[in-house]
Amino acid sequence: MPDVTVGIIMGSQSDWPTMKEAADILDTLGIAYETRIVSAHRTPDRLWDYGTKAAGRGLKAIIAGAGGAAHLPGMMASKTRVPVIGVPVQTKALSGVDSLYSIVQMPRGYPVATMAIGAAGAANAGLMAAAILANGDPGLAERLDAWRAALSASIPQEPRDD
Amino acid sequence: MPDVTVGIIMGSQSDWPTMKEAADILDTLGIAYETRIVSAHRTPDRLWDYGTKAAGRGLKAIIAGAGGAAHLPGMMASKTRVPVIGVPVQTKALSGVDSLYSIVQMPRGYPVATMAIGAAGAANAGLMAAAILANGDPGLAERLDAWRAALSASIPQEPRDD
Amino acid sequence: MPDVTVGIIMGSQSDWPTMKEAADILDTLGIAYETRIVSAHRTPDRLWDYGTKAAGRGLKAIIAGAGGAAHLPGMMASKTRVPVIGVPVQTKALSGVDSLYSIVQMPRGYPVATMAIGAAGAANAGLMAAAILANGDPGLAERLDAWRAALSASIPQEPRDD
Amino acid sequence: MPDVTVGIIMGSQSDWPTMKEAADILDTLGIAYETRIVSAHRTPDRLWDYGTKAAGRGLKAIIAGAGGAAHLPGMMASKTRVPVIGVPVQTKALSGVDSLYSIVQMPRGYPVATMAIGAAGAANAGLMAAAILANGDPGLAERLDAWRAALSASIPQEPRDD
Amino acid sequence: MPDVTVGIIMGSQSDWPTMKEAADILDTLGIAYETRIVSAHRTPDRLWDYGTKAAGRGLKAIIAGAGGAAHLPGMMASKTRVPVIGVPVQTKALSGVDSLYSIVQMPRGYPVATMAIGAAGAANAGLMAAAILANGDPGLAERLDAWRAALSASIPQEPRDD
Amino acid sequence: MPDVTVGIIMGSQSDWPTMKEAADILDTLGIAYETRIVSAHRTPDRLWDYGTKAAGRGLKAIIAGAGGAAHLPGMMASKTRVPVIGVPVQTKALSGVDSLYSIVQMPRGYPVATMAIGAAGAANAGLMAAAILANGDPGLAERLDAWRAALSASIPQEPRDD
Amino acid sequence: MPDVTVGIIMGSQSDWPTMKEAADILDTLGIAYETRIVSAHRTPDRLWDYGTKAAGRGLKAIIAGAGGAAHLPGMMASKTRVPVIGVPVQTKALSGVDSLYSIVQMPRGYPVATMAIGAAGAANAGLMAAAILANGDPGLAERLDAWRAALSASIPQEPRDD
Amino acid sequence: MPDVTVGIIMGSQSDWPTMKEAADILDTLGIAYETRIVSAHRTPDRLWDYGTKAAGRGLKAIIAGAGGAAHLPGMMASKTRVPVIGVPVQTKALSGVDSLYSIVQMPRGYPVATMAIGAAGAANAGLMAAAILANGDPGLAERLDAWRAALSASIPQEPRDD
Repeated sequence: MPDVTVGIIMGSQSDWPTMKEAADILDTLGIAYETRIVSAHRTPDRLWDYGTKAAGRGLKAIIAGAGGAAHLPGMMASKTRVPVIGVPVQTKALSGVDSLYSIVQMPRGYPVATMAIGAAGAANAGLMAAAILANGDPGLAERLDAWRAALSASIPQEPRDD
Repeated sequence: MPDVTVGIIMGSQSDWPTMKEAADILDTLGIAYETRIVSAHRTPDRLWDYGTKAAGRGLKAIIAGAGGAAHLPGMMASKTRVPVIGVPVQTKALSGVDSLYSIVQMPRGYPVATMAIGAAGAANAGLMAAAILANGDPGLAERLDAWRAALSASIPQEPRDD
Repeated sequence: MPDVTVGIIMGSQSDWPTMKEAADILDTLGIAYETRIVSAHRTPDRLWDYGTKAAGRGLKAIIAGAGGAAHLPGMMASKTRVPVIGVPVQTKALSGVDSLYSIVQMPRGYPVATMAIGAAGAANAGLMAAAILANGDPGLAERLDAWRAALSASIPQEPRDD
Repeated sequence: MPDVTVGIIMGSQSDWPTMKEAADILDTLGIAYETRIVSAHRTPDRLWDYGTKAAGRGLKAIIAGAGGAAHLPGMMASKTRVPVIGVPVQTKALSGVDSLYSIVQMPRGYPVATMAIGAAGAANAGLMAAAILANGDPGLAERLDAWRAALSASIPQEPRDD
Repeated sequence: MPDVTVGIIMGSQSDWPTMKEAADILDTLGIAYETRIVSAHRTPDRLWDYGTKAAGRGLKAIIAGAGGAAHLPGMMASKTRVPVIGVPVQTKALSGVDSLYSIVQMPRGYPVATMAIGAAGAANAGLMAAAILANGDPGLAERLDAWRAALSASIPQEPRDD
Repeated sequence: MPDVTVGIIMGSQSDWPTMKEAADILDTLGIAYETRIVSAHRTPDRLWDYGTKAAGRGLKAIIAGAGGAAHLPGMMASKTRVPVIGVPVQTKALSGVDSLYSIVQMPRGYPVATMAIGAAGAANAGLMAAAILANGDPGLAERLDAWRAALSASIPQEPRDD
Repeated sequence: MPDVTVGIIMGSQSDWPTMKEAADILDTLGIAYETRIVSAHRTPDRLWDYGTKAAGRGLKAIIAGAGGAAHLPGMMASKTRVPVIGVPVQTKALSGVDSLYSIVQMPRGYPVATMAIGAAGAANAGLMAAAILANGDPGLAERLDAWRAALSASIPQEPRDD
Repeated sequence: MPDVTVGIIMGSQSDWPTMKEAADILDTLGIAYETRIVSAHRTPDRLWDYGTKAAGRGLKAIIAGAGGAAHLPGMMASKTRVPVIGVPVQTKALSGVDSLYSIVQMPRGYPVATMAIGAAGAANAGLMAAAILANGDPGLAERLDAWRAALSASIPQEPRDD
């Protein structure tokens, strides 16, 4: 059984329907991962602990989804040098623009690899994690190339009326 | 010498010209305070430590200024029940809208008393801290009332050409 | 029966489903409060009267919710030194960005402690009022600490499929 | 000497360079006016007084300029049925979008005739006041028509290099 | 039967559910009005004709509603000195921010008295027209004062659970 | 001397520094054009006249620049079937977002080919006009292809320190 | 059977309900067209191929619809001098503002004739293509003039209650 | 001499002052890189070529900066599975919000790891590239950890007046 190299963390249970898209991509590409609820505000010590141990545990990418003030990805980036991929979850009033700004506008020193708002962004977070891992895993690189080729090949030439 | 009851914290030295407005108000109203640089991302352990001890040290308000992703006020609110007053510092590209959204859009459980963007917001943070303290300090309440009355009285009846 | 120390005011009946979240928090924490409809535009004299008497009546925090032009929190802050906590109610066309800007962008002299847009902001207004009161009420401080600890403890380790 | 029929009010001295554009238009069209600093937050009683007496004093339009939270025009509209014309003054961080939203998004019952942000808006406030007065003043109607015709006639056919 | 003094015009049939709010106010206040569809783009000559004749026909206010590019209010303001009151109709993609900017950001010379986005703005357009007419109609001034007083009196003291 | 096939129109002299970029492109590509100030609000009859005659005069593209409410391009599109290319001129308060929304959000029936805000948009308006004309002018098509090829060829391989 | 002179391309099948509006207009005006799915990211080589051959195949306008990052119209404009008309498709989180900015803010050299967000924009893309073709096709010019005249004639004088 | 593992590409020479921040970080951390101007629109074939060969050449991260429509990062992500890190360059009219939306809102399948707008984002792009490389390079991981520790250690306890 492969070692877990990717952590998918999220601020609350309500983020899971979005973040599940990342897990699905990782499943498809055969990448072992773990899922955790780590709230920056409600469980800051859990965040501290997770971040402090991430590199030592062999994690090579952390996918972090959050909405609104969305401090989780940035705080995780503060605690570990493991690449953090941020997913802005769509919100009710501000549609995720708040999440996006809070995640992407990080100060010098602590990058968060920010994805698109919502489900497409979560899926892409899985693909970005795969691309990072593929740098050191030729088999995964092949599987990722194949996935990309299949996506390209799936596009029909003409639109169809439904 | 009075006990320090207000902490003014900020994410970096570059926030000081803005946050000094809060200190000036506290000076004017005779409120003892301390100033600290506490970066959520660069010194997370300092933030942890500051937040964990805040209530026990007798702080009754924490004024926290930050710009961009601006996680400092919200993370401080996660670590202490002492009221946190957030000041969105103006930023270059997004003019502080990023700071504002990151500070104000806190999830249920962890309020940040958010002020206006920039220097007026910092001054108002000082006044909000004073209003909170005035609840338990009749002398300060009188000084605050007098400050407010003087501000009102200072307004001329008509605009003047300069 | 405890004295009322918190006023929850709102611009119209339609704000109540949002503002009720603040009342629920105060109920949970055992804080006595009153609820009033005070429209800045439709009942300005009621606003004047409420603000003028607030400090003398022993109020220690006023939670004010409003949407759109949302002048209520700021006008109340003009009339009393009692800390005013503003809740931007979500609106139909502008999603509450209008409410947020109108409430948070107060000029020097008259702070409004602005919360997040909508229901989470209203709940947090209750918690901010509690934090302000807890400065002078050790029993409430304990109850607030316990509430916060319970919230933290409620977060599961992993997301679950529903 | 003609009776004053238009009041130009503004939140602070710093609004005068903008609001002077309204005064210039009224001068040009021969409309008597007064200028006052009336701060919604710093001098609410002055606002109350001004609004309460406006109709009785014979005012037929009130031009109100303000920036940021910009409560002055809307609160004046609450206190008098005299038409209120609002000018959103440009602000530093939000460029006057905050002023615009606070002024224009008034609730049912209390209209503010909102103009463009900044100096052009102030000039147009003068013209809107003139148009309102012209309804009952044929001489002014002629002067306003002539002013408009002259503006049209002043436009060259082709742009010129400077 | 009273002369028509207010025109309610709109860009298309789809604006009528919004603009009907203005008509309802005018009905309530006993003001005679007419309703017309005048599309700036589809019927520019109708716009020209309407604007050219407006003052001569005795119109004292024109309420113009439009959405999106929303050129109707501004073009009408170009063609007549009769006060034009603009109502930004809410739109699908941009929620009426497009309508608002197109209506309010008029250049020096051609003011449009802009109201809030959507139905509340339309109702307020009716009230603004009434306020303008009331300058020269003491009976209407009384009815408007009474309407405003009734609105104020209708506000209950406390919110109720539904 | 070639017939004029492109009109460059603008709302005011102040738009010329921006719109000159379009003229420069047309000069470079050898396309005859005329420049006119046509203000939608100040010279509506000039707009009417220009639009009514455009097709008959042989114009094949009209480049229209305007800022703020920016009604010129859309109103011209209402008056002629000649393709109208709109250039949103940058504005002081809203940076041209107002111009952009007013120009691009046209209703069904009256397209405006909208370009980027400011000078780059004006240059591109010239190129779009050229592309439209090139459909029926093989010589121009060659010149445009050559211009594009030269632009591509001008890009260095590596950035240089200045 | 007439030659195809217009290509309607779109980034994915999900854009077709929007883009069909363009096709309907072309059908109505008797303009032959083709429809293709050309994804900038998923089928970049298809984009390359389509763009490289467009002028040689006799295309005179390309209508390109895309949402989100929406690179299709701009990349097509990079590959061909044939006029590209861009349609920003409405998106879930950002309502098409992302699509609009990505399509309209093209750099100097590569214009995209940008239409309104969504279905009205797609219909207008068809009309813009018709206007471009009409420059060299008197019969089409007549049909387009007639279509425009019919649209104008269809507008009733007064709104009706439904 | 170490192999080049990171490519820094940008849309034009004018992006270099921003993107140089990424190069400086890579220099500091001892990571070999190359810099290229690759314009999505002006040199699409160069983009194609660069992307097609990137994985085979051993690149492990591509940092791509662009402003406005900013198609470069997304199109590069379409052509290679090598992780693409996008830097939204600040723009004149829209301050880089256009760049941000165009870069971050990528569709499912083609992630771009988006950084903050402007220079801080460029520096963070260098750090993100370092973090990705550090997954397979223990020496670099140590250097990155040391760089991060030094940044933390550089923060003074208190702000100083300048």
